[in-house]
Amino acid sequence: MTYCVGLLLKEGLVMLSDTRTNAGLDNISTYRKMFFFERPGEVVITIMTAGSLSVTQTAMARLQEAIDAPDADETTSILKAPTLLKAASIIGNTLAETRLEIDEKLNAMNQGATASLIVAGQRKGGQMRLFLIYPEGNFIQATEDTPFLQIGEHKYGKPILDRVVKPGTSLADAKKAVLLSMDSTLRSNLSVGMPLDMAVIERDALQVTQRRRIEAGDPQFRAMSEAWSKALRDGFTQIEI
Amino acid sequence: MTYCVGLLLKEGLVMLSDTRTNAGLDNISTYRKMFFFERPGEVVITIMTAGSLSVTQTAMARLQEAIDAPDADETTSILKAPTLLKAASIIGNTLAETRLEIDEKLNAMNQGATASLIVAGQRKGGQMRLFLIYPEGNFIQATEDTPFLQIGEHKYGKPILDRVVKPGTSLADAKKAVLLSMDSTLRSNLSVGMPLDMAVIERDALQVTQRRRIEAGDPQFRAMSEAWSKALRDGFTQIEI
Repeated sequence: MTYCVGLLLKEGLVMLSDTRTNAGLDNISTYRKMFFFERPGEVVITIMTAGSLSVTQTAMARLQEAIDAPDADETTSILKAPTLLKAASIIGNTLAETRLEIDEKLNAMNQGATASLIVAGQRKGGQMRLFLIYPEGNFIQATEDTPFLQIGEHKYGKPILDRVVKPGTSLADAKKAVLLSMDSTLRSNLSVGMPLDMAVIERDALQVTQRRRIEAGDPQFRAMSEAWSKALRDGFTQIEI
Repeated sequence: MTYCVGLLLKEGLVMLSDTRTNAGLDNISTYRKMFFFERPGEVVITIMTAGSLSVTQTAMARLQEAIDAPDADETTSILKAPTLLKAASIIGNTLAETRLEIDEKLNAMNQGATASLIVAGQRKGGQMRLFLIYPEGNFIQATEDTPFLQIGEHKYGKPILDRVVKPGTSLADAKKAVLLSMDSTLRSNLSVGMPLDMAVIERDALQVTQRRRIEAGDPQFRAMSEAWSKALRDGFTQIEI
């Protein structure tokens, strides 16, 4: 499993993903699930992936090949697509085709493959966008009413987002919120694991403004996790029923 | 959907269930999901239900019929079963048979029916027990390491239980923990709804010591919910990253 979350805020985009990948409980590995595509000053796109690794890796590789191809144009390269919406369409189509191909192969074994993506980005002159792309290639967007999107093991970490994330939330608070959301998920579900990848794209920066890998023993993350545990316990103690 | 949670603590058993039942999004009703079977001073059993209403209602009715039957004996009546383990077996078998019957009927329509139960209780001279009974009739028990069991929409409300519930938790704190666990679930999932049913069986009381229905506008529950929101927001604000 996986947990990835993206926020669309007035000040920018915030993304956080874990790295645990497993094929059965005795085959656990670490794979990056956050990918960057950018031409600084022109366009920036971040993609986070959940689901079958063979689907997501192949889809990401195909998107990169299409960017690098000598005949790349605005209908094939997500960096040349004139809008983020068109880029999301290309990504959706690539995901759907890849998934269908692999799914057909696996059907012979009575297995299936599925995957979903979160796409965040901005193109010069355009708005910041945050999409959730479904396995079939269709997608939805984050809005003012629902400024966050999640893929993978999303339930454990949703209550804290429901309570604190609004479009006007500051980037500092947003980073805290996604990290605490991940912290709850890590505690409750074995299939989500450290290290984590976090990225911030500030509004109109047109490049990834901050990227950080948070390793298992990261003292800052641990301190935050312990402070949150303490805050929850203290809050719990103070409440009267 | 549904959310039910049961705790097995040194001081007693604590149960909480919601009442929302839905068949599709436009057919929502309120049904009690917590059932009591007791002979005060001798045996007390509480059952909470999740899943297909036709399965759980029929299974509960059959358990009651078996108790009331003139030829009820220790192999058919859960109140006559010599141990809680044997009572859990009767309940498991009744659930499995009922589910199978209904499932076969629904198979013709390419549909299926499933249900699971939490059973809590104590018999004179025996230990307090807390079981989770699966649709197939097999079951697991709560232990010192895992003093709580959940059925239905369990993920949103698990983080708070993971953090605060230990076997030595007081009954007052336990009631608070299950109510806050429910509060998180109510906020994040539409298929779980008020009113709530809460019950406490104190150790060796051999009867339900406390039962409470919490209605939608309950001022005490609302105050607790708001105090918890405030505690979370305050805790969130104080944490530095």
